This record gives sequence, C-alpha cells and structure tokens, in this order.
Amino acid sequence: MEFKICVVGLGLMGASLAQGLRGFKGARVVGVEQQPAARQKALEAGMVSAVFPDIAEGAAGADLIIFCVYARHLPPLLRAALPALKPGCLLADICGVKGPLYREILPLVPEGMRYVGIHPMAGRERDGIENADPALYQNTSLLICPTPKSAPEDIRLMEALARHLGCARTRTVQPEAHDALIAYTSDLMHVSAAGLCLRYPPKLDLAFTAGAFRDCTRVADINAEAWAGLLMENRQNTLGALEGYIADLQRLAGALRAGDDETLRRLLLQAGNNKREMLKR
Amino acid sequence: MEFKICVVGLGLMGASLAQGLRGFKGARVVGVEQQPAARQKALEAGMVSAVFPDIAEGAAGADLIIFCVYARHLPPLLRAALPALKPGCLLADICGVKGPLYREILPLVPEGMRYVGIHPMAGRERDGIENADPALYQNTSLLICPTPKSAPEDIRLMEALARHLGCARTRTVQPEAHDALIAYTSDLMHVSAAGLCLRYPPKLDLAFTAGAFRDCTRVADINAEAWAGLLMENRQNTLGALEGYIADLQRLAGALRAGDDETLRRLLLQAGNNKREMLKR
Repeated sequence: MEFKICVVGLGLMGASLAQGLRGFKGARVVGVEQQPAARQKALEAGMVSAVFPDIAEGAAGADLIIFCVYARHLPPLLRAALPALKPGCLLADICGVKGPLYREILPLVPEGMRYVGIHPMAGRERDGIENADPALYQNTSLLICPTPKSAPEDIRLMEALARHLGCARTRTVQPEAHDALIAYTSDLMHVSAAGLCLRYPPKLDLAFTAGAFRDCTRVADINAEAWAGLLMENRQNTLGALEGYIADLQRLAGALRAGDDETLRRLLLQAGNNKREMLKR
Repeated sequence: MEFKICVVGLGLMGASLAQGLRGFKGARVVGVEQQPAARQKALEAGMVSAVFPDIAEGAAGADLIIFCVYARHLPPLLRAALPALKPGCLLADICGVKGPLYREILPLVPEGMRYVGIHPMAGRERDGIENADPALYQNTSLLICPTPKSAPEDIRLMEALARHLGCARTRTVQPEAHDALIAYTSDLMHVSAAGLCLRYPPKLDLAFTAGAFRDCTRVADINAEAWAGLLMENRQNTLGALEGYIADLQRLAGALRAGDDETLRRLLLQAGNNKREMLKR
C-alpha cells in the first residue's frame, strides 16, 4: 500500500518540506500550487512526483495532507478538498498561530478524518520556492499541536516526520499554550526588530554598526504581508507581550532619565540572568 | 629608533589589541594591568614584551599609549601617567562614548602631547584576557575621533593601525556625531535586547525558540557593570533613541489593538525598506 503525501502550497516552507519528506515511509509526495512558475520549478527540480493547480486533484487518495499556506487561505482550500478526501486521511498545517485557526476549521473536518497541527521553528529571510532547501528543518524544533480530532498515532507520525526531517526536538503543546509562547519567542521578536528600523539617524553608515545592530535588526527585513497576518491572528497574545516589553523599556528609560546607575545596573543584570536561565530549559 | 606602544588595561579589548599590534611599525608592545593573574597570563602567552602594575612605569618612554579601560577609570590613570610621559607622545583610548570623556580629559593633556580617540566596532559576549584574540578586530570597523589635540598624522597612524589589525574600514567622525550614531547602532540595540529578557512566559522552553529569538536577544547577556556605565555616559543620546523606539512600538501596538491590518502592514513594509536602505550606505 503506497503512502501518499500531499503538500499544499509550494513556497519556501512547503517546497522545503516536500523535498525533506523524500523517502519518508516510502511515500509518494505530490504538490498543490496555484502559481504556474512554481509548479514548473517543483517538477523540474524533482521536488514532487506530481503537482496540481487544483487541490481536489492533488488531495485525492492522500493519506496525509499538509497545508503550507497562509492561515486565511486554509479554510477555502479545505472546503475545496473535502469532496476528494480519502476516508481516514490525516490533515495537518504548519501555520504559526493555531487557536483561532482551529476554532474556525475543526468544525469543517468530517467525521472519520483526523487533524493535527505542526509548527516548524524554521524559516529564512528570503521566501519562495527558489529558496527551498530540504535541510531547512535540520536541527530546528517541531512543535506539535494535538486537536480534539487527533489520534495518538497522529502525534507519533509527526514525531517520525520530524526525525526524518532532521529536527533536533519536538514538543507537544496545546494550541492555546502554543500561541501564548510564540507571541513572546517569535511575534514579539519580529515586532521589536521592525520597531528598531522605523527611524534611524540620517547620517547612519554601515561603519557605525557591529554585531548588536546586525543581530537585533536581522528579522526586520520581513515579509510584511505574511507577518501582518500572523501578528493579527495572534493579536491578543502579541499585544500582551508587546505591552509588557514597552513597560520594561520604560523602566530602563526611567533609570536613564533619573541618572539612576544602580537601578540600570540591576535591570541589565536581571536581563542577563534571565537570558541564561531561558537557555537552560 | 624603537617605537614603543603601551596598552593600558589587558581585558578582552586591550589584550586582543596588544596581540594584534605585534609587528606594527616594528613596535615593542608593553602592557599595564592591575590584576596579577591577568599580568601573568599576558606574559606567559607572550601578548606583551613586558607588563607593569604601575602606569608611570609602563607609559615611560612610550610613543603611543592606548587606554583600554572603562571611561571612569581613564582620568585618574591619565593623571598618574602624566609625570612619566615622553614629550610628543600620542595618547588614545577605545572608550565607546567620546564627548563627555573628552570634555573631562583633554584639559589634562599637557602642551606638546597629542590625543586621538578610536572606537573599534568589535566585541565578544565573554569578557576578559582569557577570551583575547588577535583576530578580534578583523573585518570590523574602526571609528576615529579627532580632538583639538590631534594632528593629521595621528589620524593617519590610526588608519595604519586599523589596516594592521585587519579592520575592514575606518571612518573619521567628530566625538559628538560619534556619540549620537552609536546611541542608535549600539546603545539602543543593547537596551532593546535587555528589555526583551526582563519578562518571559513561565512555561518557556528552548524548543519554542528559533533564529529570531536567538538573534534579537543575543546581546542581552551583557556585562551589566560596563554597559550601565556606557549607557549613562551617553544618556541624552540613548534616551532620545529609546524614546523614539518606544513611540514606534506604540504605533505598532496601536495598529494591533485597533485590528488595523493596513497600518500594520505599512509599518512592517517601512521597517523592511529602511533596513535594506541602511545596509546600502
């Protein structure tokens, strides 16, 4: 019995996943992609064994369907796929925000089908199939979000998939807890970096920059479309994290304004201690 | 005629500089360091040809004296060195803030002596002579701050020193302009990273982090003592940059709070454009 995987959306993440899944459970991997140029590239590079513009064609007979698309594109794609789904197939997505998405789509998942979320903690500054790389997921984490429509073997399948991709670790986490943690480790970091680039001294020149500037602003060169979506989908959590961050920056500004060395030193010491503490977990 | 260089302070920066200067103008490089263990390490590793606890001994007869110490330690060290200075010697420092320091110390520099500031845009997360590395300055920028007591040949000497260290570029910049630019490219970046680590979700685990977290918080594991000093010395400029940053984060928070996709996307787009613009200069 052939195992068939359908990857929906062949952007950076989907095309890398399709390639990385080669040989996983002896699967045949097919793709669904609307852009003709990306379809051609996927076939020419041998990333998938077949590629379809229409999801009903690609998803037909698949044992595992992984949506690698913006969250807002997922519900209509799922609806379009429904008539073609093989009974007992497993649906999955790699979206970065889980709670609101699952409230919307789980009711659409028919009886007898299952659904599990994954979130690969990987990415690149440059998007698109042309930057796809089967090694994208190596040494990264794969977060697995069970839903009321996940079976224990679905979690185990995603753990096996993570091992096949070369992930360093997996964590199983409920969607709501996932979204709250990601608001800090991902959403806030991107907002922080973007904020650092909204104004800069007019005479700035690369010679005045070093590692701190390079690293703190690296992710500011952002896909504005994708990230506006992610931040809005997780907006209550992100706002909470951002408001906490602004309050902490105000404490640092207050110490500076007051010329209060002692408080400033204490805050910097606390930040360093926290950083080391976080890395230990 | 032997050229003698005296490096005052053999921490990470000074010890790396002393090693990197080997062979520069055929100089004999000596060190001044108060800690016995660091003096021993410097001699054993052959970082300097001699090392002294007393600055008057180390600075005697030197053609170039480079202070690699915290700014607040510089004035008393300079006063202690004065009786031993060779007429015509060039004094330099590598402190990260220039304006307030030069207002304090330039009046102390005797007639016939010269003074120039340098700021190597280099560093490491771990301090101390045990992390010293002659390659620390390779491919970094060296900022050169002339003072009213600098001669044109002093600037040229610092440019030659930068070439010897393997620096990628030098820029000559007035102390006040230097401090204003550094407030953004260095001080604000460190405050931003520290602020990101002052609070974090209790259930955080490394698996939930990826490149954005790693890079945005890298410099939060800071030498609190050194950075409280640097931030306070440049506090007006740093406060200005920090207040601008907080205002920009408030704009991002406002767009999130209002559910205003369009404004959020526009701000993220602006940040990305600015980032690419900055890297072109």
